[in-house]
Amino acid sequence: MAELGATSIDVAASDLAGNLSHCHEEPADVTSGPDVVLSRVAELFDEILAQIPPGTNVWGIGLGLPGPVEFETSTPVSPPIMPGWDGYDVRGFFGSRFQVPVWVDNDVNVMALGELRGGTATGHRDFVFVKVGTGIGAGLVSRGELHRGAQGCAGDIGHAAVGTSDVLCRCGQHGCLEALAGGYALARDGLGLARAGTSALLSQALSDGREVSAQTVIWAAQHGDPAARELVVASARLLGESLARLVNFFNPSLILIGGGVASAGDMYLAEVRQSVIARSLPLATRSLQIARSPLGDRAGLRGAAFMVVDELLSPERLAAADVAAS
Amino acid sequence: MAELGATSIDVAASDLAGNLSHCHEEPADVTSGPDVVLSRVAELFDEILAQIPPGTNVWGIGLGLPGPVEFETSTPVSPPIMPGWDGYDVRGFFGSRFQVPVWVDNDVNVMALGELRGGTATGHRDFVFVKVGTGIGAGLVSRGELHRGAQGCAGDIGHAAVGTSDVLCRCGQHGCLEALAGGYALARDGLGLARAGTSALLSQALSDGREVSAQTVIWAAQHGDPAARELVVASARLLGESLARLVNFFNPSLILIGGGVASAGDMYLAEVRQSVIARSLPLATRSLQIARSPLGDRAGLRGAAFMVVDELLSPERLAAADVAAS
Repeated sequence: MAELGATSIDVAASDLAGNLSHCHEEPADVTSGPDVVLSRVAELFDEILAQIPPGTNVWGIGLGLPGPVEFETSTPVSPPIMPGWDGYDVRGFFGSRFQVPVWVDNDVNVMALGELRGGTATGHRDFVFVKVGTGIGAGLVSRGELHRGAQGCAGDIGHAAVGTSDVLCRCGQHGCLEALAGGYALARDGLGLARAGTSALLSQALSDGREVSAQTVIWAAQHGDPAARELVVASARLLGESLARLVNFFNPSLILIGGGVASAGDMYLAEVRQSVIARSLPLATRSLQIARSPLGDRAGLRGAAFMVVDELLSPERLAAADVAAS
Repeated sequence: MAELGATSIDVAASDLAGNLSHCHEEPADVTSGPDVVLSRVAELFDEILAQIPPGTNVWGIGLGLPGPVEFETSTPVSPPIMPGWDGYDVRGFFGSRFQVPVWVDNDVNVMALGELRGGTATGHRDFVFVKVGTGIGAGLVSRGELHRGAQGCAGDIGHAAVGTSDVLCRCGQHGCLEALAGGYALARDGLGLARAGTSALLSQALSDGREVSAQTVIWAAQHGDPAARELVVASARLLGESLARLVNFFNPSLILIGGGVASAGDMYLAEVRQSVIARSLPLATRSLQIARSPLGDRAGLRGAAFMVVDELLSPERLAAADVAAS
């Protein structure tokens, strides 16, 4: 299994029950293109294969990518932060090297699947996984299965307009949720506070030569810095207002929030909950749970494993195997 | 089959292919409560039964209601415009009178099903039906089947906040889409124009003693009244901005728009399309169609018929029948 982020590669082996082993994470740059990045993933797979017991059957490869994916063909479709990846034959790349079936999906979808099949979302039929990292995206589960949408890009909540802000987003539009409340926005606004001297802890970090990242802002907020805290809470409030629309529209029984910004913990979640409840239909929030993704970083790798197991055991595939065997 | 609106009852017979006959519509007031309204529906069913050939098998009853419905039990759940209906045993009411299975769903869901199984949406796996009548609601189809949500209230787009307006909505919140762009809003703002004398045609209608309804505003707009036209176009623009969020989030391949306000036709649809495309992800609108519901008033009754057929032939029900027969 592998999960690619904008700046990282995560790989692991998994048994057919989704139990991970040989987990490894390293920095990477998804903008260096599919040949470079996927070759490194293949090397890491080779290292795992060298470590597992000889004779172990390898049943398939699952991969999560940080962009829209056409699931049937396992190809990225116009991924906004992945230049060079549009239409790339990811399945062919791994299939020819490892001679096993390959499935690829959007990273937030595999995280949702990880929580659905082996985490807190088990048993929920209508469920939303929200990742608040540098950007903001969602994975949707309808009637117990992923809702991927017509082009495989369902779950985009990051580029919905929020109020009347004119902040420019990396998508080219103005006032997107992601441009105001994602990790990138926290880092940008935190650096502003540090430079203006309006946050003691962030100014200190800056003068110490530390990077003022989203995690630095969260750290300062958790250590009682009022200005940093206000940034984190404002981010949570904006996310909650967007999730309220989603709750009215999709009526999930559970929202799990993962990604780096979710590490801000209770201060963040409490504001999200309050903001959702203030603006949703009472019926839709009657038994709605909003919680932090307990699988955290592991949700994506576990989800990639379950994706492979589900597809290996799909009725269509088993029927085709029956025909072939007869 | 029957469909209840806020102010009307529609009934019809249907064969197992969804072909309607014996269609009848009459005014009704859903606020007079379930006993009064459903008794009248039962009388209308009796009239239909008296007209169809003797010995015809009646396989089931399907009903659409203008509020959230728990589908498993066929009971309305806290319907906002239906006092007295919360938790009412609609299935029991008809089941005891007609000795056939009964299924009940939200009216926009059955409209979506009508278009999916016997209309323009045939073959679309991810599809949204939007009804713009007095209020505004949506029916969602994910992977070829209705997405009802955890409490059966998925598809609520009418009570999402739009901008920073403080107009009071009948739900008790401020600035809801429905309060600014539904049929009720058109009628309210049209009456304002008529009284202020800023719309020649609407002022004329008022002084002629005609009711200034949403349909009057649409009529004036279609006859070239600039102020009325601006109201209709503004309503379409607001709807389009909300649908843009929905397109990013749900990634449908088709949006069908029905309900009374959709009768404004091309002037309305063109503005909705423009507004959706301006604010959605390019990938999500690449092959998105937005059109008027061609089944119109018949979508609900046909959908109710297909709901009954689908449930009669569901794998669970057929399996149960197998067990009973063996």
